[in-house]
Amino acid sequence: MIDSVLVANRGEIAVRVIQAAQELGIETVAVYSDADETAKHVRRADEAFHVGSSMASKSYLDQAALIDAATEADVDAIHPGYGFLAENTEFAARVEDSEFIWIGPPSDVMTNFGEKTQAREIMDRADVPIVPGTTDPAESPDDVTAFGEEHGYPLAIKADGGGGGRGLKVVESEGDVDEKFADAKREGEAYFDNPAVYVEKFLENPRHIEVQIIADTHGNVRHLYERDCSVQRDQQKLIEEMPSPVLDADTREELCAAATRGVAEADYVNAGTVEFLYEDGEFYFLEVNARIQVEHTVTEATTGIDLVKEQFRVAAGEELSFTQDDVDPRGAAVEFRINAEDPRNEFIPTPGDLETYRRPTGIGVRVDDGVDEGDAVSPFYDSLVGKFIVTAATREEALDRATRVLRETEIEGIATTIPFHLAVLGDGTFRDSQHTTKYVDEQFDGFADEQ
Amino acid sequence: MIDSVLVANRGEIAVRVIQAAQELGIETVAVYSDADETAKHVRRADEAFHVGSSMASKSYLDQAALIDAATEADVDAIHPGYGFLAENTEFAARVEDSEFIWIGPPSDVMTNFGEKTQAREIMDRADVPIVPGTTDPAESPDDVTAFGEEHGYPLAIKADGGGGGRGLKVVESEGDVDEKFADAKREGEAYFDNPAVYVEKFLENPRHIEVQIIADTHGNVRHLYERDCSVQRDQQKLIEEMPSPVLDADTREELCAAATRGVAEADYVNAGTVEFLYEDGEFYFLEVNARIQVEHTVTEATTGIDLVKEQFRVAAGEELSFTQDDVDPRGAAVEFRINAEDPRNEFIPTPGDLETYRRPTGIGVRVDDGVDEGDAVSPFYDSLVGKFIVTAATREEALDRATRVLRETEIEGIATTIPFHLAVLGDGTFRDSQHTTKYVDEQFDGFADEQ
Repeated sequence: MIDSVLVANRGEIAVRVIQAAQELGIETVAVYSDADETAKHVRRADEAFHVGSSMASKSYLDQAALIDAATEADVDAIHPGYGFLAENTEFAARVEDSEFIWIGPPSDVMTNFGEKTQAREIMDRADVPIVPGTTDPAESPDDVTAFGEEHGYPLAIKADGGGGGRGLKVVESEGDVDEKFADAKREGEAYFDNPAVYVEKFLENPRHIEVQIIADTHGNVRHLYERDCSVQRDQQKLIEEMPSPVLDADTREELCAAATRGVAEADYVNAGTVEFLYEDGEFYFLEVNARIQVEHTVTEATTGIDLVKEQFRVAAGEELSFTQDDVDPRGAAVEFRINAEDPRNEFIPTPGDLETYRRPTGIGVRVDDGVDEGDAVSPFYDSLVGKFIVTAATREEALDRATRVLRETEIEGIATTIPFHLAVLGDGTFRDSQHTTKYVDEQFDGFADEQ
Repeated sequence: MIDSVLVANRGEIAVRVIQAAQELGIETVAVYSDADETAKHVRRADEAFHVGSSMASKSYLDQAALIDAATEADVDAIHPGYGFLAENTEFAARVEDSEFIWIGPPSDVMTNFGEKTQAREIMDRADVPIVPGTTDPAESPDDVTAFGEEHGYPLAIKADGGGGGRGLKVVESEGDVDEKFADAKREGEAYFDNPAVYVEKFLENPRHIEVQIIADTHGNVRHLYERDCSVQRDQQKLIEEMPSPVLDADTREELCAAATRGVAEADYVNAGTVEFLYEDGEFYFLEVNARIQVEHTVTEATTGIDLVKEQFRVAAGEELSFTQDDVDPRGAAVEFRINAEDPRNEFIPTPGDLETYRRPTGIGVRVDDGVDEGDAVSPFYDSLVGKFIVTAATREEALDRATRVLRETEIEGIATTIPFHLAVLGDGTFRDSQHTTKYVDEQFDGFADEQ
């Protein structure tokens, strides 16, 4: 039903989608900006269309240029990957209104989960635990103070349209309310064109745990268990793993059931992630990411299910190829994001030429990347150049394997996050899984233990 | 218990063993010939010792030089890999008599399985089906003729010390007996210093199916199900897969139980493979390979068990880390041997410089290799430069994935078997699993269908 696809993205996720399409016998069409004319995702595709200049706003975010490319290439479908336009409701709707199949959740589902207050309402209806907070936007500092009296401090004021830490203000005590309320509204207006804010209890030492789900148009909603993404720096995930080492079996089942109820309540279709914070044995709904995520790979590694292929199946109107009982994870998988960033220098981006790149080999390592040796890492886009997904029978074995894998990788020409990962692998807090989302920013010992 | 190991091998298996040791925190010592001074297995090891000139007989087969290197390096153990001295009983005994731990089956077990007639006797005692044949060596052409009268033609005369097709003569009718009997004895004497021959019924269209086993010194004998290695050229395996597409569940259980009985009968220890021929629903014992095999990787891919690590554990006197019930294969895995051979030109070896080598990436592919880009493929050793192990939920998906994987691999400078594998993947006989061990030599359609 889908014979050809335009991949409206770049880098490793574009390569990932192209690989899945090739295995399904689907013709692949890449798009590229000036900076990406010879990029790996272009080389891997059957055909490629230039869609604009190097600034993403003039190419990968240019909806008209992408639709034009799809029209010219005469494809059946468009896959947005993650980032760029993947969660842009307007673009999804535009694709739906065109002749093309949108390989992602329907735009109305995306709308439901795009605004925090609406997402919380849906989850509340589905009896999914949510962080105590206001369902309606807070109109004034008094609303915030009233919430603080009931639930205590610290609390968080969050921009309704926000995400990834932008438009989020932590209020430590009543005296800060006025200032932080104004700050949050200002950021919401500036970044998201939406000054509405709401208030939530602020968890001080949570784990970030999320549930992978996928649903088809025949009413089948499946979860693929959880991922633990608590190793974050400045709200950016750096290491993701499955299973979460801190969940017991009962909590895991409750969590996955809650996520499934939540998306079923919204008539969800295609792949998505329900994100939670977890603290003191309780989990609280955070947000839904209505797209494939960077870290979907650890779920594939433990379950043996190819999520991107399932996305194609669902978009083509087919049923999912597996039942809930077929989802039977084995072993442990850990993903390490290989970013062109210098971890010894505040993680500043390090674009440049990848002069040497020898991938790791052997048992239990999957490499997804958007570059080959000799390629340039562009300053125009995010710094994720690849991901190493390490799988083994147990978490401990996976971490030992990861150390081997990261050490044998040879990269010259740019600094990467590999030394950071090796330092984390040598750090007792992470090895013992005592870390929270504050770990990198507050608990990480730095490079003392690096070997 | 094992803190350091000397890897008495080269190429991809040396790298494989080094990787396993590194994950276990074991110091690694490589050995190298003149030709391999800068080889990948040397670069990957913590330390490396020169053991002789490029001819294997003067280096990798030089027992004294290897023992000297182990002594100088002061290692705890020696891992022989496969090939070279891996099945040399004398070397195993020499290591056992030294201060070093031999990471393989004990030399007396190797002796039992090293001679065909003795191996057949052991299997017969354990009620393992064997190809009808003589248990005692055939003394004269008359013994052969008598066997032919009872079991029919064709039959095979095999050198007692032989293997891999050497010293094997197929007799189509009584008139050929005298000549083939003399030929087999002569080859046995020349290659194996053993003129004894025996006679077997010759299967005309068998599949090659083998069972992976591993046993510890605590009496635990486990099987890890079967591999189907029927894609062979001139008795050399080229593609191996798991599970075998031609076995039903009952036959699989019988086969694995028979293999387990057979090795238990011989007090087997460490990893090994029991090879069978399979034809018309019946399986017949062929031989035991008392070592890790090239194709152990497909078993690792489906079971999630690291066989080389288990070899270390067993050699250290530990129990196996898994029970028989833990062996629960999932999906399908197929290994493609990447040989430096030209499949369009009678598979002649193609040593030379690996000018470009971009490994495949993405979901479901494991790469084991002994070379990096820029390395030379030496004319002195076998032509196996790497292995791609492709895993998926089903055989069909694995074959589709393999096509993607092989197509995206970039190798320049030498011809390889990749075009052969792509042609096989496009061939209906293989896709439908109708092939036998004669497939490449007699049924393979050549490169007509290659894409």
